[in-house]
Amino acid sequence: MGKIEETIAKIKGVDPALLDEAQKRLDNLTKPQGSLGKLEDTAKKVVGATGEKNPSTKRKVIFTMAGDHGVVAEGVSAFPQEVTPQMVYNFLNGGAGVNVLARLAGARVVVVDIGVATDLNPHPYLIVKKVKYGTANIAKGPAMTREEAIKSIENGIDVFEEEFKNGIDIAGMGDMGIGNTTPSAALASVITGSRVEDITGRGTGISDEALLNKIDVIKRAIDINKPDPNDAIDVLAKVGGLEIGGIAGVILAAAAHRVPVVVDGFISGAAMLIAYKLEPSVKDYIIAAHSSVERGHKAILDYVGVEPLLDLGLRLGEGTGAALAFGIIEASLKILAEMATFESAAVSEKI
Amino acid sequence: MGKIEETIAKIKGVDPALLDEAQKRLDNLTKPQGSLGKLEDTAKKVVGATGEKNPSTKRKVIFTMAGDHGVVAEGVSAFPQEVTPQMVYNFLNGGAGVNVLARLAGARVVVVDIGVATDLNPHPYLIVKKVKYGTANIAKGPAMTREEAIKSIENGIDVFEEEFKNGIDIAGMGDMGIGNTTPSAALASVITGSRVEDITGRGTGISDEALLNKIDVIKRAIDINKPDPNDAIDVLAKVGGLEIGGIAGVILAAAAHRVPVVVDGFISGAAMLIAYKLEPSVKDYIIAAHSSVERGHKAILDYVGVEPLLDLGLRLGEGTGAALAFGIIEASLKILAEMATFESAAVSEKI
Repeated sequence: MGKIEETIAKIKGVDPALLDEAQKRLDNLTKPQGSLGKLEDTAKKVVGATGEKNPSTKRKVIFTMAGDHGVVAEGVSAFPQEVTPQMVYNFLNGGAGVNVLARLAGARVVVVDIGVATDLNPHPYLIVKKVKYGTANIAKGPAMTREEAIKSIENGIDVFEEEFKNGIDIAGMGDMGIGNTTPSAALASVITGSRVEDITGRGTGISDEALLNKIDVIKRAIDINKPDPNDAIDVLAKVGGLEIGGIAGVILAAAAHRVPVVVDGFISGAAMLIAYKLEPSVKDYIIAAHSSVERGHKAILDYVGVEPLLDLGLRLGEGTGAALAFGIIEASLKILAEMATFESAAVSEKI
Repeated sequence: MGKIEETIAKIKGVDPALLDEAQKRLDNLTKPQGSLGKLEDTAKKVVGATGEKNPSTKRKVIFTMAGDHGVVAEGVSAFPQEVTPQMVYNFLNGGAGVNVLARLAGARVVVVDIGVATDLNPHPYLIVKKVKYGTANIAKGPAMTREEAIKSIENGIDVFEEEFKNGIDIAGMGDMGIGNTTPSAALASVITGSRVEDITGRGTGISDEALLNKIDVIKRAIDINKPDPNDAIDVLAKVGGLEIGGIAGVILAAAAHRVPVVVDGFISGAAMLIAYKLEPSVKDYIIAAHSSVERGHKAILDYVGVEPLLDLGLRLGEGTGAALAFGIIEASLKILAEMATFESAAVSEKI
């Protein structure tokens, strides 16, 4: 049995009795029933995922996985490929958006090179799990071999397992990779069945003309590679990306350890599709951080059946939305743990 | 000149040059321009309101104003009136939703009795600014006299001025008052011109039948009292509430001191309408915390022209949404202050 199958075998279903008990507790708190909306749903979700009555999210980790994409040769991105390693250094130096938001949330950022196209300077905080130097151009052939796709997921699992030794109560997923909305849209179109036109967005901010080209590139990538929608590994290998596989691996490993996973935006969403196709019960461990501006994100969320917590017009990636969602998730658990009940506060109930 | 006019006279316009400078700084940070969406808008708003290039929101205060409503005699609420003082004690004991969320956000909660129908036991943290023992039944006559409406706003101003001496970087507004969605809907219908049916919701959770009765009660209240939509004080006096006036006073006083005000949900929104009608430039100081489940909230936000930060299905009030929004606002300012620029991080710009 391979590492992916071993990990999936460890993912357990959620105990419905525990969810019922959490619901009862929420209903006894001094507020109209259901009046804290998504906070209540979120608290229940974390209880279900962790199997704990009063879960903590003290030890927060964001995994930001970086990889490059051969498809940038088709002019699909507004930024040059050299930005991928430059931003990895920015993460390591603490200057990127995800660093700022993670610091505020009290989260560690784990930066992983899973497929950057160049060698990066060694850094004590950089985890090198490079499968290869970027994917091939999906407009002309497969992004990677099936073996490399499996390796990218396995490397994600390894990264989580290694970090889990230091303690993780909640994980957030983020991405970096110039051009990565293109494979994400291709992958999401194949798996969700959405039309390429409906799922392709402007990424970092391309023009109308470049968007038409991007749609054409994605259609060609699907036509040439013919990924099998019922074989997630095949889709990942043919039109995916290395960081997408890595994130999928972290999601699976987190679920196997009953650690709730906060999925960021469009690219993490594409990775969620891979993890979900491999094992649908990962859904019980996933919290969707936010609704991205990127056009196809809603189709991804709807396919898996998860509702986003935030809607702040974000389209940055890196795990920024996950870092923001950590605060809301923590709030939901404080409500469950700290609010007075009608009885304890001597407040009259509904007439 | 009265206290309200004096306060309004101090409210200054925002410096457009400062907003331009903040926009330029945001555009130089290592992210695609605009990719942090509402975080960027929020950072600019706080810069504009405070007049500071790197504003702090360290000293956070939530003002939770409590008042009762004679209209509960018409069966408009799912909870009995005794819950208003019971919840005030819950606030003072730290057990309510707003306390839990404020603690997490690092905010103080200032609890004000501005019109609870009974005398409350003295408590070191309870501020008593009672205008009267609840409003009269608006289905039968005015909620209060014009003088009492003015007094409720003045008391709100006084509460803010007193607390401002201890230092306030950002203020949140919250409410408590069984029955208070009824006067809020009446007031919002009159000011925004929305139909009563379109602006009246289920409050703490009333049945279909009770909702029809509530709509009928509000229509009668407007018919009998004939509030003048162009005279905010008249609307407040005839179909409003004491905590609604108090919150409006705090909003005006905060704007006068260049303190950004985070307005919670439907009742705080109704108070925002009063403050906005008295002085439209308060809008530059207001951040709408969230989009409430309460049906008429959107009409209020649209009338003033403010976009809500969060959409979490909340309908609790108390300032709970404001406390949650504090975290997002703080994040927006950290982005402005701490993110690396393209130059400082040596990251290539858009092609």
